[in-house]
Amino acid sequence: MNQQIFAEIITIGDEILYGQITDTNSQWISAELDKLGIKIRQKSSVSDQADEILRIFSEASKRAHLIIITGGLGPTNDDVTKKTLCTYFNTQLVWNEAVLAHLESLFFIRGRTLSELNKQQALVPANCEVLMNKNGTAPGMWFNVNNVVYISLPGVPFEMKHILKDFGFDKIKQHFKTPVIAHRMIKTIGIGESTLSEIIAGWEAALPAHMSLAYLPSAGEVRLRITGTGENQEQLNAEIQHEIDQVLPLISAHVYGFDDDTLEYAVGQLLKKNNKTIATAESCTGGYLAHLLTSVPGSSAYYHGSVIAYQNKIKTELLDVPSGILTTYGAVSEQTVERMAKEVRLKLGTSIGVAASGIAGPDGGTDEKPVGTIWIAYADEHKVVTRKLQLSALRENNIRMTALAILNLVRNQLNNS
Amino acid sequence: MNQQIFAEIITIGDEILYGQITDTNSQWISAELDKLGIKIRQKSSVSDQADEILRIFSEASKRAHLIIITGGLGPTNDDVTKKTLCTYFNTQLVWNEAVLAHLESLFFIRGRTLSELNKQQALVPANCEVLMNKNGTAPGMWFNVNNVVYISLPGVPFEMKHILKDFGFDKIKQHFKTPVIAHRMIKTIGIGESTLSEIIAGWEAALPAHMSLAYLPSAGEVRLRITGTGENQEQLNAEIQHEIDQVLPLISAHVYGFDDDTLEYAVGQLLKKNNKTIATAESCTGGYLAHLLTSVPGSSAYYHGSVIAYQNKIKTELLDVPSGILTTYGAVSEQTVERMAKEVRLKLGTSIGVAASGIAGPDGGTDEKPVGTIWIAYADEHKVVTRKLQLSALRENNIRMTALAILNLVRNQLNNS
Repeated sequence: MNQQIFAEIITIGDEILYGQITDTNSQWISAELDKLGIKIRQKSSVSDQADEILRIFSEASKRAHLIIITGGLGPTNDDVTKKTLCTYFNTQLVWNEAVLAHLESLFFIRGRTLSELNKQQALVPANCEVLMNKNGTAPGMWFNVNNVVYISLPGVPFEMKHILKDFGFDKIKQHFKTPVIAHRMIKTIGIGESTLSEIIAGWEAALPAHMSLAYLPSAGEVRLRITGTGENQEQLNAEIQHEIDQVLPLISAHVYGFDDDTLEYAVGQLLKKNNKTIATAESCTGGYLAHLLTSVPGSSAYYHGSVIAYQNKIKTELLDVPSGILTTYGAVSEQTVERMAKEVRLKLGTSIGVAASGIAGPDGGTDEKPVGTIWIAYADEHKVVTRKLQLSALRENNIRMTALAILNLVRNQLNNS
Repeated sequence: MNQQIFAEIITIGDEILYGQITDTNSQWISAELDKLGIKIRQKSSVSDQADEILRIFSEASKRAHLIIITGGLGPTNDDVTKKTLCTYFNTQLVWNEAVLAHLESLFFIRGRTLSELNKQQALVPANCEVLMNKNGTAPGMWFNVNNVVYISLPGVPFEMKHILKDFGFDKIKQHFKTPVIAHRMIKTIGIGESTLSEIIAGWEAALPAHMSLAYLPSAGEVRLRITGTGENQEQLNAEIQHEIDQVLPLISAHVYGFDDDTLEYAVGQLLKKNNKTIATAESCTGGYLAHLLTSVPGSSAYYHGSVIAYQNKIKTELLDVPSGILTTYGAVSEQTVERMAKEVRLKLGTSIGVAASGIAGPDGGTDEKPVGTIWIAYADEHKVVTRKLQLSALRENNIRMTALAILNLVRNQLNNS
């Protein structure tokens, strides 16, 4: 590429500013433009008010070569994007015959008559090129004014996506001569961002100039993203793979996967590869661990099931945890989870059994065992491994972190066996 | 209020512009500020680059009284928000003793040493007031410069939310003297938006001028939000309650709760009120139903546990579903879920047993039982009720909708008993 192409995304709609809907459009468009090597400079959301829309168009046009606009193209009065585009470009609405024909056929197929209101969806600014919307009434519109391309699209996600996939991206590629770019993600667990960055500091500093590294932490894990730009896609992919091969030995114990892999998927793959099956015995996680494991399509190949023993009685009756253990050590104890893991493995006939018992909170803590005290266990035919976690006061977080800790324990055991 | 308060939300992070994460922070903040009567003028996302951050700060400060900033507060090099705030306010970083003490205790509790890198989280711009982050290392920061308030928060959603709930919103209310405003939410399930609006059209049209109604549909449910403005909080609350009392008789069968109630919470309350206990037997929902029920603090009062039978063998061995039923009718059948619900109730000694078995997808469908075919059952001491659901091809959606359908079945049975 000769020049970095900058884009901006503008989403229009009061419902976005009121927080009534999650804007997923801008994330999807960002990810797609990123694949084309186009850099997003800014994403903005503004209300359905002409003056706000005019302002953001004008500001964005000073920063970007490409502006993608979604929303505000409905036929009702509160949708003003089309009229505002006319004001902005100093032009007027004209009838578009192709859109009109599409509307007539669309309504004919649906067995409805085309109302005057809906007919007006065929009115478009005189200076636009129409991008047909096969799935709806509001057409996409392409403007090229003063070396800036504006694409206006409906806000309904599947209509917007289809217009871009059917017509938009090809037109963008042709118009801007887009560069070669690649992203890879290394996914780690059980290590903090700062420790990770200390371990790989030397490698990071030695990365070639056309590559960059970002740390993306989220609850319990840190993702490392490597981004590269180049001339040739295959060569760039190979160069990034080479860098990954260099850094992996430094952090391999913490790497569970790459790119779109989730921990539950990675553990599922490991179980399959090792011909192992698994069962879970859950107390404080209350089914969340089972849910993570079964959220992976095809998990029935290695996941047999779970006993969720939310009451001590169930731990005794369904998992044969001796009531002596529960009274002597308590339900939240190493002895209890050890027994739960062993028993669920035997009862469900799997290679591996795992268990969790703890105080998820917000109540139920004691001085000796405060909220966030959680025991986890792993059992296979050879051994039992237990860990004590000391987590936070937040129930939701404790449940999630415990489930991830168990998955990571399984991963470590399978990798070291 | 004397003057409309305008706010802007700025989310910082390359991962947002690259489309690698969904920004849920800005939606949550928007909805919360809306409740305070503060209007969001614009939401913007920019990259982790100092010049871009400086530009958007400067632009937003010309349009808004309040600017909420999330992201870019990690301890590593790619996080530049704190340094950029110093540049913007022409100040420098200073050690904050309270944050340092918090970090030391946080790492002590976790049994880890505070590294030099993490220690730097206690460095904050000299002109800020710290909003403590109980759940993480990056503190929130409040700036009041030239009549504009800036609040900088970490990007991790639960840390950000807790800082605002613990300190931020109260400080905002005090500082801006926000108007008297009240929101109430009526939560319905099992009825579509258009049917609902037809039923309550007369009531809606008769709402007083200082109240407005919004329909907020989401998967499986519709929330009705009533917003009122006034002079006196108590009087306004009473006026809104009066309107709710008017509309409830029209839609009571579909109303499961109000405001922050979730369906799982509402069902839990009903179980408690009726002195009932419940156990679950899950196949296709794979623990998600148990997870919903146990996500409610105190659920151990009525929830005993679950048998997740992801394999037919487990259905037979742990739930005594006769193998004849499985071979004659299949695992996805009325006969199977009926047996699962009855047996889990008996085995776990509860008043109620519920069960689900179906084809969550994406694979495993047949002509007779396509993906999305799901049977659910409810059993108590008097009766068994079953339902067949025909859902979509989307695994995640099928799991969630099935769990909600079971909870709603329990709700209806308890309400009609």
